Amino acid sequence: MAILSELATEVFIPVAGIIGIAFAIVQWVLVSKVKLSPAAAASGGNKNGGYGDYLIEEEEGLNDHNVVVKCAEIQNAISEGATSFLFTEYQYVGIFMSIFAVLIFLFLGSVEGFSTKSQPCTYSKDKTCKPALFTALFSTVSFLLGAITSLVSGFLGMKIATYANARTTLEARKGVGKAFIVAFRSGAVMGFLLASSGLVVLYITINLFKLYYGEDWEGLFESITGYGLGGSSMALFGRVGGGIYTKAADVGADLVGKVERNIPEDDPRNPAVIADNVGDNVGDIAGMGSDLFGSYAESSCAALVVASISSFGINHDFTGMCYPLLVSSVGIIVCLITTLFATDIFEVKAVNEIEPALKKQLVISTALMTVGIAIISWLALPAKFTIYNFGTQKEVSNWGLFFCVAIGLWAGLIIGFVTEYYTSNAYSPVQDVADSCRTGAATNVIFGLALGYKSVIIPIFAIALSIYVSFSIAAMYGIAVAALGMLSTIATGLAIDAYGPISDNAGGIAEMAGMSHRIRERTDALDAAGNTTAAIGKGFAIGSAALVSLALFGAFVSRAGVKVVDVLSPKVFIGLIVGAMLPYWFSAMTMKSVGSAALKMVEEVRRQFNTIPGLMEGTAKPDYATCVKISTDASIKEMIPPGALVILTPLIVGTLFGVETLSGVLAGALVSGVQIAISASNTGGAWDNAKKYIEAGASEHARTLGPKGSDCHKAAVIGDTIGDPLKDTSGPSLNILIKLMAVESLVFAPFFATHGGLLFKLF
Amino acid sequence: MAILSELATEVFIPVAGIIGIAFAIVQWVLVSKVKLSPAAAASGGNKNGGYGDYLIEEEEGLNDHNVVVKCAEIQNAISEGATSFLFTEYQYVGIFMSIFAVLIFLFLGSVEGFSTKSQPCTYSKDKTCKPALFTALFSTVSFLLGAITSLVSGFLGMKIATYANARTTLEARKGVGKAFIVAFRSGAVMGFLLASSGLVVLYITINLFKLYYGEDWEGLFESITGYGLGGSSMALFGRVGGGIYTKAADVGADLVGKVERNIPEDDPRNPAVIADNVGDNVGDIAGMGSDLFGSYAESSCAALVVASISSFGINHDFTGMCYPLLVSSVGIIVCLITTLFATDIFEVKAVNEIEPALKKQLVISTALMTVGIAIISWLALPAKFTIYNFGTQKEVSNWGLFFCVAIGLWAGLIIGFVTEYYTSNAYSPVQDVADSCRTGAATNVIFGLALGYKSVIIPIFAIALSIYVSFSIAAMYGIAVAALGMLSTIATGLAIDAYGPISDNAGGIAEMAGMSHRIRERTDALDAAGNTTAAIGKGFAIGSAALVSLALFGAFVSRAGVKVVDVLSPKVFIGLIVGAMLPYWFSAMTMKSVGSAALKMVEEVRRQFNTIPGLMEGTAKPDYATCVKISTDASIKEMIPPGALVILTPLIVGTLFGVETLSGVLAGALVSGVQIAISASNTGGAWDNAKKYIEAGASEHARTLGPKGSDCHKAAVIGDTIGDPLKDTSGPSLNILIKLMAVESLVFAPFFATHGGLLFKLF
Repeated sequence: MAILSELATEVFIPVAGIIGIAFAIVQWVLVSKVKLSPAAAASGGNKNGGYGDYLIEEEEGLNDHNVVVKCAEIQNAISEGATSFLFTEYQYVGIFMSIFAVLIFLFLGSVEGFSTKSQPCTYSKDKTCKPALFTALFSTVSFLLGAITSLVSGFLGMKIATYANARTTLEARKGVGKAFIVAFRSGAVMGFLLASSGLVVLYITINLFKLYYGEDWEGLFESITGYGLGGSSMALFGRVGGGIYTKAADVGADLVGKVERNIPEDDPRNPAVIADNVGDNVGDIAGMGSDLFGSYAESSCAALVVASISSFGINHDFTGMCYPLLVSSVGIIVCLITTLFATDIFEVKAVNEIEPALKKQLVISTALMTVGIAIISWLALPAKFTIYNFGTQKEVSNWGLFFCVAIGLWAGLIIGFVTEYYTSNAYSPVQDVADSCRTGAATNVIFGLALGYKSVIIPIFAIALSIYVSFSIAAMYGIAVAALGMLSTIATGLAIDAYGPISDNAGGIAEMAGMSHRIRERTDALDAAGNTTAAIGKGFAIGSAALVSLALFGAFVSRAGVKVVDVLSPKVFIGLIVGAMLPYWFSAMTMKSVGSAALKMVEEVRRQFNTIPGLMEGTAKPDYATCVKISTDASIKEMIPPGALVILTPLIVGTLFGVETLSGVLAGALVSGVQIAISASNTGGAWDNAKKYIEAGASEHARTLGPKGSDCHKAAVIGDTIGDPLKDTSGPSLNILIKLMAVESLVFAPFFATHGGLLFKLF
Repeated sequence: MAILSELATEVFIPVAGIIGIAFAIVQWVLVSKVKLSPAAAASGGNKNGGYGDYLIEEEEGLNDHNVVVKCAEIQNAISEGATSFLFTEYQYVGIFMSIFAVLIFLFLGSVEGFSTKSQPCTYSKDKTCKPALFTALFSTVSFLLGAITSLVSGFLGMKIATYANARTTLEARKGVGKAFIVAFRSGAVMGFLLASSGLVVLYITINLFKLYYGEDWEGLFESITGYGLGGSSMALFGRVGGGIYTKAADVGADLVGKVERNIPEDDPRNPAVIADNVGDNVGDIAGMGSDLFGSYAESSCAALVVASISSFGINHDFTGMCYPLLVSSVGIIVCLITTLFATDIFEVKAVNEIEPALKKQLVISTALMTVGIAIISWLALPAKFTIYNFGTQKEVSNWGLFFCVAIGLWAGLIIGFVTEYYTSNAYSPVQDVADSCRTGAATNVIFGLALGYKSVIIPIFAIALSIYVSFSIAAMYGIAVAALGMLSTIATGLAIDAYGPISDNAGGIAEMAGMSHRIRERTDALDAAGNTTAAIGKGFAIGSAALVSLALFGAFVSRAGVKVVDVLSPKVFIGLIVGAMLPYWFSAMTMKSVGSAALKMVEEVRRQFNTIPGLMEGTAKPDYATCVKISTDASIKEMIPPGALVILTPLIVGTLFGVETLSGVLAGALVSGVQIAISASNTGGAWDNAKKYIEAGASEHARTLGPKGSDCHKAAVIGDTIGDPLKDTSGPSLNILIKLMAVESLVFAPFFATHGGLLFKLF
């Protein structure tokens, strides 16, 4: 048996989770030390000569109370807008989750005709398992828990982000290093809160459910899969709704502001500017957070459900069963140490140190985590054990499993760096795209699309290699833990990811508050680094989504009792080709949604410019709230069709065509969706940075293309606008498509296996 | 047995083929009656009062000999440019085909170690089959025959097209109906030549090979598959090389002419204008022809190779074996009758009758063909027979097989009409895209991409339904004959397809020859209808490519002895995901190629405008030949990387990873490639027609967007330019990717089955 005792496991997991939450709170407290009210600073001043310690390195404008007041005001507006959007969204979430919870209960309860009698187990026919009705009930409960955990983490993440953005702006007066630390710490709050609460809630749920299930681990972990579905359903709202919100506001603001009125980005005269900043928070922070939370919950559930029918589950080896949770626990500790490297050990002093500091976070966390995985694999796993492999048991060693987790982890790093290569303007791909702007917007778009297509190659090889190796070692369990490996450094990944929109907002606030050019330069530098890390984060998100959905697919197939998914069977093949079509259908919907919502925004912004006297002159204030409301309403309304496509496809296909066709649909959507998601994200990122490359004019070459307002720059702006929905709405939303369909199929697998395929049964 | 005797079959097929060829010659003669030399017209005039009968409806400019001379000159320049490109291309084709022929011989010869002894058959182990060495030899011969037939048909098609374009222009002086008939007849020459020669050569080859193979039909039809590979390899050059050529010239000409110099399209002052017109012929005529020829040859070969191991082959039922050829023979007769409806029975009198006349062709041919298939299925097939189905024999009835062919045929029509709906500016999708130009190029691109994605949905369902039904009825043979059904009206399809570029060229010639506005309006109307039919043709091409490659895939799997292609096996899954990536890699290459080649063209055009005095004023002539040479050289050079990707992937994957991974790659490339191909073609077509919609200003709504030169129109031009490589290069080239990889795998299947999978064998 394993070295780590059951008791030690029971202690280690919650302790790691609580340390993570505590660390998040500490970071929040540190951020809150930057005071946002001039009154407080002034009253503090009565005591120690005008300013607190934290204001010692006085640089510029520190005495300007007006600026502080203005920043506080803007932050309030952003925070209120974001909160109001989220609350509106939550009303719909509430309705949706209630209906879906009832559906889950009814579908799963019907498997054995709502009988309350115990039944023989699905895999071990000689044992008795709890009745399907109760598993339906517990699945529903864990579904709701997953949704609530994701909702609360996303909400708190958004709160800290809107709490930190003006503080980052104010700190930028003192230097780029100070501002960087505020933004990064706030990102870390989000990362650690999400990773830790996800772990703790899952852990508590397992322990509580165990009180009922006792020795029936098959039923226990089957009901736990609801947790992944809950997290993922929430991500549908976060990613799709948030994605539409953020880009409707962004595109709408740009089309009127930049193109028609010729005023700069983030100009306070633009009525949509607050909505744009709100969008950064609800789309990139809450949306990205819920997406990664979903992946994390799903890969844990996929691993657990396979483990429950492997030797861990059969022998009731609790430590071995909890291996996925232990990996995540170690991840929290490793990320905590890694964070200290950015905030305490090294110090960012100059603009060009920001991006390396963020990238160093990825490398350090990956290197440390490799050691961490090795240790936990040695401590928590028996030297040999068996893993369920579509009907048979496959022998695996602890070192083999270490290798599965590690290959996922490193594949994530490779995907991250390839993404960076294709989207950062420090390298030739983006520079070539910028250069193609010489001949206008058309060549810019052609080169940008080609870049996105090309950027798919290496990530796909990395994913394919991870799949091959981890599957060969430990079947579908190997793939699930490889996904977990990629997500094990999620706290750090989310920290550098959330850092991006916070810096972006900080820049917007500096512009709106009318701060000096010097401050803007600093926030721009923070933002540029954030753009690259956002692209890396998206790479991670889609890479892990691919592995996660394959793991879920494997778990679904196992649970549905499918032994073979044969492409040569027409049932499977039509599923495959229709599945490969779904990402296109879905993207068409989300892109059209952004377009329609942006057009509504354009109308409103135009209306305000035309009807509010003195707006262009800056003497009258625009009506920000109406724009926020338009984005909110449009995004909620527009997310219904794509959301319905995702939610209904598995239900319809599974019920009417059965598990074989559904397997084909899942595989097709996966292999096709991952390509569009990567290429859309990278194309959009490349266009954005090509524009920034021309604007910054940092090299001889870049200066021949600029300056701002040149024909080249105008062509680049067109590319950037096209890229917005690709990189922030349709691309990342595809993660949800492929994951949510897979986890939904897994949860409903018992129903499909029993009652599915009506159409084929009829004919 | 069947009603149709072996002798009747032996007579009917060549007779149908010869009738088709004769019909093509008749059409050619009819077109040649339009005289292009003013001298001849004048000398004819000496006999019957100045003009022949065909010039009776004198309208305008008929006396202007200068115009005729100018038209003849321009046509000569285009024809010379096209011929010179094709001859340059053929040199490379020659080298490539020779090397590939040697490779085929060596790979296939090595299967049994170059032994000259007879071996037991692969499927009927009790019988003796011819040695693999001779099958290698015959495969090589049929490969070369396929390539040569495709080459000759493409060349002749290009010749008639360049022969007809100026004649169409001249006839436009007399009315739109006359011009329409010339253009349509010329298209018919291409269609009938290609369909008939493809059939006749294949038929003769089978009969000649039979002299050697005798009773060994397994070996006979295995060696015949080389014919499909030959046709498809030629299509690689036609589609990819031709596609790069046409769009490099088009984009290059537009970027300098329309955008920088503000001169209209097809203005004779633009040095790239001849290259652009040449491109229409080599890309859209020769390229499209070779693509469809490839599909036609491949689906016939796929059907034949499966039939050879079904009851037809086992019982040596020659009529049943020849069913695929009989369907094509009936198709030629049906298309011949259909053509008469356009040229003789109905008459196009007004501009708005052109498009309905072309669409009627599709409906009539489909309806007649349904009857034709029913008759030939009743005559040529036994009431019951068996079809090979991955190791077992499946019983099929003649009516079942009729249903397979018919569903393919009708699915093609549905795909064609859906394509029309999404790309014609008579319907709301394109009008919405045009409307989105109000807010600039960015929204135009976003809406256009979304339209392309959306247009995938119905065609995929149509393809999926055809696959399901035809596979359920007659396994992989059903899919092969469904593909044949879709292609059975190929002569009509190609006729209306080739009509497009001929009209396009006619318009260009009218512009260059300085003909009146009235004539330009007529040629524009012809061209607009041609744009829609070109989009329909592309829909057909990709739809049939999907079915064909699935049929080839099935034949490959059968020949390689694979019983199951299980997605749950990691070998297959990594193939699937990497295969789904290949279309992206390939598209990145082809789009980048167009971009680079266009940039070279831009430089040359700029150089000529800057260094040739009097060029802009129209007093000096540009150097057309240099532009033609640049396009020629660039396209040949740029097609090497994408060509290598297509040719080498099956060889590398098959040799190193084996047939299972290769199966995954083929399935992945198929299900992913078909989506990108459809969406890219339709997006490009929609942008093109959105631009034309604004230019034509035919409705109230369209006039609010125009006129030419307005901001909306400029945004629409950007979309059109982006769409050029999508719809004419990268999109249609994907057909080749998916088909060529499949047919190559089929031809090399004996080698992969024996020696493949080295890497897995080593580890």
